[in-house]
Amino acid sequence: MVRLGWIAQQSGAELHGDGEIPVSRIDTLVDADASAISFLTNPHYKKHLAETRAGAVILAREHLDDCPCAALLTDDPQLCYARVAALLAPSDEFTPGRHDSAVVDADATVDASAWIGPTAVIEAGAIIGPGVFVGPGCVVARGARVGAGSRLVSRVTLCHDVVIGERVLIHPGAVIGADGFGLARAAEGWQKIPQLGTVRIGDDVEIGANTTIDRGAIRDTIIERGAKLDNQIQIAHNVRIGEHTAIAACVGISGSTTVGRNCTLGGGVGLAGHLEFGDNTHFTGQSLVTRSFSEPGLYSGNMPALPNREWRKAVARFRHLDEMARKVNRLEREIQELQRRTKGD
Amino acid sequence: MVRLGWIAQQSGAELHGDGEIPVSRIDTLVDADASAISFLTNPHYKKHLAETRAGAVILAREHLDDCPCAALLTDDPQLCYARVAALLAPSDEFTPGRHDSAVVDADATVDASAWIGPTAVIEAGAIIGPGVFVGPGCVVARGARVGAGSRLVSRVTLCHDVVIGERVLIHPGAVIGADGFGLARAAEGWQKIPQLGTVRIGDDVEIGANTTIDRGAIRDTIIERGAKLDNQIQIAHNVRIGEHTAIAACVGISGSTTVGRNCTLGGGVGLAGHLEFGDNTHFTGQSLVTRSFSEPGLYSGNMPALPNREWRKAVARFRHLDEMARKVNRLEREIQELQRRTKGD
Amino acid sequence: MVRLGWIAQQSGAELHGDGEIPVSRIDTLVDADASAISFLTNPHYKKHLAETRAGAVILAREHLDDCPCAALLTDDPQLCYARVAALLAPSDEFTPGRHDSAVVDADATVDASAWIGPTAVIEAGAIIGPGVFVGPGCVVARGARVGAGSRLVSRVTLCHDVVIGERVLIHPGAVIGADGFGLARAAEGWQKIPQLGTVRIGDDVEIGANTTIDRGAIRDTIIERGAKLDNQIQIAHNVRIGEHTAIAACVGISGSTTVGRNCTLGGGVGLAGHLEFGDNTHFTGQSLVTRSFSEPGLYSGNMPALPNREWRKAVARFRHLDEMARKVNRLEREIQELQRRTKGD
Repeated sequence: MVRLGWIAQQSGAELHGDGEIPVSRIDTLVDADASAISFLTNPHYKKHLAETRAGAVILAREHLDDCPCAALLTDDPQLCYARVAALLAPSDEFTPGRHDSAVVDADATVDASAWIGPTAVIEAGAIIGPGVFVGPGCVVARGARVGAGSRLVSRVTLCHDVVIGERVLIHPGAVIGADGFGLARAAEGWQKIPQLGTVRIGDDVEIGANTTIDRGAIRDTIIERGAKLDNQIQIAHNVRIGEHTAIAACVGISGSTTVGRNCTLGGGVGLAGHLEFGDNTHFTGQSLVTRSFSEPGLYSGNMPALPNREWRKAVARFRHLDEMARKVNRLEREIQELQRRTKGD
Repeated sequence: MVRLGWIAQQSGAELHGDGEIPVSRIDTLVDADASAISFLTNPHYKKHLAETRAGAVILAREHLDDCPCAALLTDDPQLCYARVAALLAPSDEFTPGRHDSAVVDADATVDASAWIGPTAVIEAGAIIGPGVFVGPGCVVARGARVGAGSRLVSRVTLCHDVVIGERVLIHPGAVIGADGFGLARAAEGWQKIPQLGTVRIGDDVEIGANTTIDRGAIRDTIIERGAKLDNQIQIAHNVRIGEHTAIAACVGISGSTTVGRNCTLGGGVGLAGHLEFGDNTHFTGQSLVTRSFSEPGLYSGNMPALPNREWRKAVARFRHLDEMARKVNRLEREIQELQRRTKGD
Repeated sequence: MVRLGWIAQQSGAELHGDGEIPVSRIDTLVDADASAISFLTNPHYKKHLAETRAGAVILAREHLDDCPCAALLTDDPQLCYARVAALLAPSDEFTPGRHDSAVVDADATVDASAWIGPTAVIEAGAIIGPGVFVGPGCVVARGARVGAGSRLVSRVTLCHDVVIGERVLIHPGAVIGADGFGLARAAEGWQKIPQLGTVRIGDDVEIGANTTIDRGAIRDTIIERGAKLDNQIQIAHNVRIGEHTAIAACVGISGSTTVGRNCTLGGGVGLAGHLEFGDNTHFTGQSLVTRSFSEPGLYSGNMPALPNREWRKAVARFRHLDEMARKVNRLEREIQELQRRTKGD
């Protein structure tokens, strides 16, 4: 339990009402009770405001009149909600040390304030920084480095020589630093191209479950600080992702493509290789991107679903679109001829 | 070896022929020998029926005349095949206990009839029910619960406080309960939104290899009983999947979307966030779905492959489809003018 | 350090310059110093050739005049680069044995020249061949076999009875042999179809991080020798992939589809089930393929991204493409009528 006034102070919101109200958690307008703070971030849920039983609600000033309880006033309810939820969330604290079942190589360096969990493996030359949490089943291969305050939740794989910044959060099943897909055509089949670079992850990056980020062929694959990656993303060798760029789940980025800062990629977007995108470039979900766009802006390439019957007709016509365009052009010429002829009358 | 008569009885099929025939396995029409039961579920393979050397064949009555051996007659050969194969499949039985290398916290509760495999980790507060199989390398984090008869094949991750029903089957690499992708824009970069809900999986659910199901932001992500999920599916926070809905591989479902009961999603389908679909809604493979459809039915959104040369032409025209449509409308007006004019003659 | 002359000899390139030059690594034209070999494989980087400080450069004879240092002349610079990089790459050698924390069943067979890493689990009946490297956290389930010289990097799962050829390289998080997605509709919900086949992987195959290959329903799923699979690929039950076919990341292949030899599939391609493709069939990235193509060639099916405003217009028109096509046909008839009429004048 904390006091509402303390929450207001910590989150930067303006308190409206009794600062002594004790609160312990955050909840939706519908489900909150007097011990919970709720929030109005989406106007769609305004209808639930008047009847909420929350102890307090985070909202913009324009909705204050409809608020039946104390309020935390803010210009940005979504950001304020995030901050308040963080204040009330269970602590991530842990007792430093290592579990008996952890396998830590004698030539690894583990800070005394770090935790190495059950069955985790830390290979020779790895460096685990202060306050790092290595959860159960993680593998930190030879020479990999993890910066202060980072957290490998569980079953994370860091391949050899990967470099992880500070306060990086990596979810289960992520694989950082597997070989890039480098092949040269040989007389029969393929000759593998050794992948000699590594992966460098900046500070404050988050990497989702089962996401894969491949090591560079010669130079490194780079994820700049503050970038946020959702689950099941595939980042190929020598990609560079700019600061604070957010990438939704199931995105695939092909080799040597560069994405700028503060970009957003919707779920399932695919970027072809060797492309370049500047800052503030945004792609809607499942867009396929086959060329570079130099201008900031919003881009899309996909085909939103229709009832199957309509879609079948449209797709059948799509296949003959070139013929249709030629026919339209021909008709245009014929009409011009007719116009000339009838005018000539 | 079992007798064909017993198989007929157990599977609900009507026996045609000698019930004393000994059978030990199931196989295709082409590969079966006298000790195998085969099946005709796809008319495409009818051509192989007359020459099969199977001991018996599962089929619909209409094909009986062409069957050279004993038969198991049924209205639904596919379902009967599934049942018979289950009868003949190797047993999943195991001896309860725990492997010496398993790490089970003193504050975890493990039923005496469960098995905890090599290098598996069961954290404090976790509850493992009767007859549960936890395979090698699994992680069951603090407070997670696994219902009776469920099976975590190997290297499955259950994050903290996740709730798994009874007879749930989870394949290797699946991650249940990682943080949802919740972010609020801050002055610089992103503020993480704590993901405070969990994931609840109903009874008789199957979850494929490397599938990820994120925990809810406040309330829970829910997979209702009997739902079947293939490999490499991504389910975002606060999604709800209805009973008996089947989802093929590589599907991505964005946050807070609700899918009804008895739906099917083809491989690679992408559902945008905050959508709602009722029961018996079906999507063909790789459809991108950006809005809710309230009617049951079949929906599609994608672009089936063509020879590249044809496709290039069609796509080039697609980019100018709006201009083409305007031109067609203009030509229509010009023709009406011409018609008026020539009529006026 | 090795001599340039030795590199030329081993890689089959023609030496131009001093064979005694000592070299130790490979690097880009821009970053190389005198101890590095560089390469010109992409004409885009020709501009950097004249100023490189590399000890030697791999290139085609036509660029020799612009090369400021020794050269390795070759008709195929990409292949030569791959070979030279392999010669200079750090060795994969290891000391055979098994880590104390590995769990090897008494009924498993492990060759004396193999390595079983920390926390790896080898179940009963598994066979680990000569020179095999099993990295940390891998699971080789009962009856699985791994051929000579293969390498499971770390956290790889081989399910029961899977067969891996020789010199196969499998990256972290890959799951080989999970159940195929086999279901039969029952009165309520689904009846699981037991997946009784296995997976067979040929020699010299490479499998990327978090890729999943399901076991066959009755017969086996087969990846033929020399095939190369990138990360996060999903291969369903009873698929067959031909020799030397290369598959980029995030591809999904549905059940019972056959892909020929020497094919290439771009990133994110989706192949529907029960299709058949011959040798030398190629698909560009994110193509959705819903029917078989019997001819070798290049196929595409997707919608490259456009600025969102243009895309919105084109998609809106796409939905009414059938109506537009009908209108164009009607206008064509009306023009013919007009032409007849005005001619009749």
